[in-house]
Amino acid sequence: MANSKYEYVRLFEQPDALLPNTWIVVRIDGRGFTKLCAKYGFEKPNDKRAIDLMNAAAKAVMTDLPEIVLAYGVSDEYSFVFHKTCQLFERRASKLVSTVVSTFTAFYIHSWPTFFEGSLINDVPLVAPLLPTFDGRAVCYPSVQNLRDYLNWRQVDCHINNLYNTTFWALVQKGGMDSVEATELLKGTFSADKNEILFSRFQINYNNEHDMYKKGSVVFRDYELVNPASSNSAQAAEAVDSVAEPPIVSKSKAENDKKRRAKARITVEHIDIIKDDFWVRRPWLLTGQPGALPKQL
Amino acid sequence: MANSKYEYVRLFEQPDALLPNTWIVVRIDGRGFTKLCAKYGFEKPNDKRAIDLMNAAAKAVMTDLPEIVLAYGVSDEYSFVFHKTCQLFERRASKLVSTVVSTFTAFYIHSWPTFFEGSLINDVPLVAPLLPTFDGRAVCYPSVQNLRDYLNWRQVDCHINNLYNTTFWALVQKGGMDSVEATELLKGTFSADKNEILFSRFQINYNNEHDMYKKGSVVFRDYELVNPASSNSAQAAEAVDSVAEPPIVSKSKAENDKKRRAKARITVEHIDIIKDDFWVRRPWLLTGQPGALPKQL
Amino acid sequence: MANSKYEYVRLFEQPDALLPNTWIVVRIDGRGFTKLCAKYGFEKPNDKRAIDLMNAAAKAVMTDLPEIVLAYGVSDEYSFVFHKTCQLFERRASKLVSTVVSTFTAFYIHSWPTFFEGSLINDVPLVAPLLPTFDGRAVCYPSVQNLRDYLNWRQVDCHINNLYNTTFWALVQKGGMDSVEATELLKGTFSADKNEILFSRFQINYNNEHDMYKKGSVVFRDYELVNPASSNSAQAAEAVDSVAEPPIVSKSKAENDKKRRAKARITVEHIDIIKDDFWVRRPWLLTGQPGALPKQL
Amino acid sequence: MANSKYEYVRLFEQPDALLPNTWIVVRIDGRGFTKLCAKYGFEKPNDKRAIDLMNAAAKAVMTDLPEIVLAYGVSDEYSFVFHKTCQLFERRASKLVSTVVSTFTAFYIHSWPTFFEGSLINDVPLVAPLLPTFDGRAVCYPSVQNLRDYLNWRQVDCHINNLYNTTFWALVQKGGMDSVEATELLKGTFSADKNEILFSRFQINYNNEHDMYKKGSVVFRDYELVNPASSNSAQAAEAVDSVAEPPIVSKSKAENDKKRRAKARITVEHIDIIKDDFWVRRPWLLTGQPGALPKQL
Repeated sequence: MANSKYEYVRLFEQPDALLPNTWIVVRIDGRGFTKLCAKYGFEKPNDKRAIDLMNAAAKAVMTDLPEIVLAYGVSDEYSFVFHKTCQLFERRASKLVSTVVSTFTAFYIHSWPTFFEGSLINDVPLVAPLLPTFDGRAVCYPSVQNLRDYLNWRQVDCHINNLYNTTFWALVQKGGMDSVEATELLKGTFSADKNEILFSRFQINYNNEHDMYKKGSVVFRDYELVNPASSNSAQAAEAVDSVAEPPIVSKSKAENDKKRRAKARITVEHIDIIKDDFWVRRPWLLTGQPGALPKQL
Repeated sequence: MANSKYEYVRLFEQPDALLPNTWIVVRIDGRGFTKLCAKYGFEKPNDKRAIDLMNAAAKAVMTDLPEIVLAYGVSDEYSFVFHKTCQLFERRASKLVSTVVSTFTAFYIHSWPTFFEGSLINDVPLVAPLLPTFDGRAVCYPSVQNLRDYLNWRQVDCHINNLYNTTFWALVQKGGMDSVEATELLKGTFSADKNEILFSRFQINYNNEHDMYKKGSVVFRDYELVNPASSNSAQAAEAVDSVAEPPIVSKSKAENDKKRRAKARITVEHIDIIKDDFWVRRPWLLTGQPGALPKQL
Repeated sequence: MANSKYEYVRLFEQPDALLPNTWIVVRIDGRGFTKLCAKYGFEKPNDKRAIDLMNAAAKAVMTDLPEIVLAYGVSDEYSFVFHKTCQLFERRASKLVSTVVSTFTAFYIHSWPTFFEGSLINDVPLVAPLLPTFDGRAVCYPSVQNLRDYLNWRQVDCHINNLYNTTFWALVQKGGMDSVEATELLKGTFSADKNEILFSRFQINYNNEHDMYKKGSVVFRDYELVNPASSNSAQAAEAVDSVAEPPIVSKSKAENDKKRRAKARITVEHIDIIKDDFWVRRPWLLTGQPGALPKQL
Repeated sequence: MANSKYEYVRLFEQPDALLPNTWIVVRIDGRGFTKLCAKYGFEKPNDKRAIDLMNAAAKAVMTDLPEIVLAYGVSDEYSFVFHKTCQLFERRASKLVSTVVSTFTAFYIHSWPTFFEGSLINDVPLVAPLLPTFDGRAVCYPSVQNLRDYLNWRQVDCHINNLYNTTFWALVQKGGMDSVEATELLKGTFSADKNEILFSRFQINYNNEHDMYKKGSVVFRDYELVNPASSNSAQAAEAVDSVAEPPIVSKSKAENDKKRRAKARITVEHIDIIKDDFWVRRPWLLTGQPGALPKQL
């Protein structure tokens, strides 16, 4: 039986390849996590199990898709950065977004028991139909500075939200306020005000809070750090910006790169990515070229 | 700390709302399922557990997203049809695709043990990192006939592939051929030839095979069937095509519709959706208006 | 000399084909016509020479592009409707828009002397650099009703603006007001108020104004009108909506259609296109099939 | 009369803003110029009148749209480069393309008599309906190198085509061949072969041909050239690439820039734009900042 009389419907698919030579960021966001957090009893202001689970899922996504050079996560969102020379799925937006979202979801659900079950005091199995799910979108950034500004935006947002949440929940959990009162009190306050509330009312020095909560989570392949004296952030960015198209690479180099990428440990750190230092010491993030593997002890 | 200096990066997000007044089909496909089938020992040519799991996940997606009027699944793919008046997520392609893909993945992974574990002879737990994942895309169809031709295309494809696979695996499993020999034998054969091979060599009458495998799976809300004498497929399609914009509906009717939709059982059937009969008896699929709830016994 | 090392730049062109099976409207608008009208002394509220020139350019565009089934013009704008089965330029938006805009501009400039020069009392040659130019955009409409509602929108707008302008300029030209006073007087008035002002102050019955100004200009190929008793607007629209793809047409029919289209006179009329009558009597506009050529006397 | 019931049709317009922080190239191409050249007797291989007319129209476009930093023309095509920080028309593709195409067409038609009419031996008026028209498209380039490679591609193409055409028409006009014979002779030849044919058969040294034909036409605002020793192409490109967003400029500087741009002479030159020298000496092309106005004598 011929299928040809119906195949014309394929012509309605519209191409969605993203502009070449631009950085692709796929950001995913938890759907309806307020309700989900309530149902599964996430701790406030931060639930370490939930963050560890997000990070485990993000590491699995990066392992599955070596074209991702960096990921940044905070709360129920994660941003995955594909190198600007990336050709995966011919850069089709829907393929990139749906693959990241599906892989993340699969590992999140599958790894849930590792973080939320298995002990007497921590045993919260997932119960359908309220399962964790995520949506996603892709955005292109033409220059290194655009990309870094995107990540800066997310890390500053992490800080702003975490300071607010830390203060809010201190007022509720330790200060005996209800959420309306706490919201009212914080309306119009600046960072300094919140630091002051934390310190004077609850003896909490915000600076001593965990970096995991203050900085979010940065995921990347771990090669040997480069001496900052030998490198320069602005020059590195410009060199990368001036790359015009994916370099032609010999088959043996491609194989070799692939092996080094596969050997590299994917690490999760809670550090500042706004300052240049992070980038200067890890030039492989922008060049896309694997660095030197750390010496084994 | 103001975040405004980085917020310009939001301007790089490009809008992706799908054309109004068109049917939206989100199709998802299993990623690398050949390898996955091998690893988890899926039966050939069809694994009932795997199909039941796909259908369970599809039902969960439809329950979560009432804007979906119909879903059609075969093998490792599923197509979800959003009504042409649907306004969900302002019709943004990436939100629609990623939400469907993530929800499907979540329920697929979470329901896996129900279908693949739990008995002595059926105990195949998922083991990371080879987890089932899916990608997806959205396509718009302006007219009912375009939409039906899309579904026809998938159901004809189901038939063609299943007849091939049934014959191929009979040759291998019962005929003692290896896969090269079976492929060679089937090259250039027509449907009649494959029917003949099945019947003469293996006493298999293809018509007696399960409809689940021959027709695929059709998922929809189940209301009272309409007498085909009182309805007419062409007229119904034209009436729906001539709708120009989402109807304005009173709040009470909207509430009422929502309740009826929520009460309706979501059913999975393995039936012909190419002929008019399927559509004539279920006018709610095209109108998007909930039908009458079946009388309870 | 090989050009291949630079040809990669072609990959940056992004496809822009419009969704199949939808009506394409290309609308063009005069750029900065307020200044242009002032410089070339266009009469207010309407300049017949300018409208005739717009219509001449629109006819030339339709002659050049037989895929256009209808055009509607008012003031310094013109909308061109491509039939939903149109395959011109593979439906690429930029080709369609730029071709219409360029052809319109070319004939507008070239025909200017016919309408604005050549007599003692009418001799306004174009003088660079202030030349008339137009911009444009393409929009898709899935159903006949959507398309007709688009045209209705433009014709209602024509009426609203012309009634306003007629009253405004009567107040200025005959009533001795300046433009601030006239604007102030008309603020918040309804149609009935403006009709009343025209009639009581200036003895102008708006109904007696020229249809060219009240209705705008409708351009189409002129075949024999069909008896409205034998046709039905709703049915015709539905029949057209239910067309799923461009019909396969024999070469001889295609040739024949082309000849009939070329023979048909392109006419400009100033009539109501909101009521069904216009469409019922001219079924070729929606079917895209050429009608019967009028008998020659 | 309210127009609101039809205004929903505006929702069908889909946004088409081009990605920020990328160079926008709008290229226009003559439609059906083979036929047009034949009808108006363009000289072969190059018609100086026609090229001068193209260049005059391109200059008018650049004068009208100061956001264009450079234009490059050859044969019946012209590429206009908008600076990557350009915000004109909110970067909407259809507005940019249609405005360029319409303005170019208007000046081309209007200036035709200047180049093709007015003397006994040169009097070829335009006669409708075969008027010159153009289509167009917009493409984004993220980096300076991408942009320069685009322009390199066009200039190399100019060279390849002109060498071919020069040899072809020498064979026809001076060698007595018909076009089939000339095509046959040139099949598979390299540049060196064509140079040899020109020289040995017709005593034509291709290097002595006019640069207008060999290099095409480069249009830009003319400021004081910069000493190449004080500038560096790679550094300049990198500095421009690393710009992340349109700079915030004081009102007085913006006014001042505008005036300097308006005062600058727009020049047409026939020079090499592939080598760095062109760019190093004219840094304003990439920075978008107006240079120093040449001293008046």
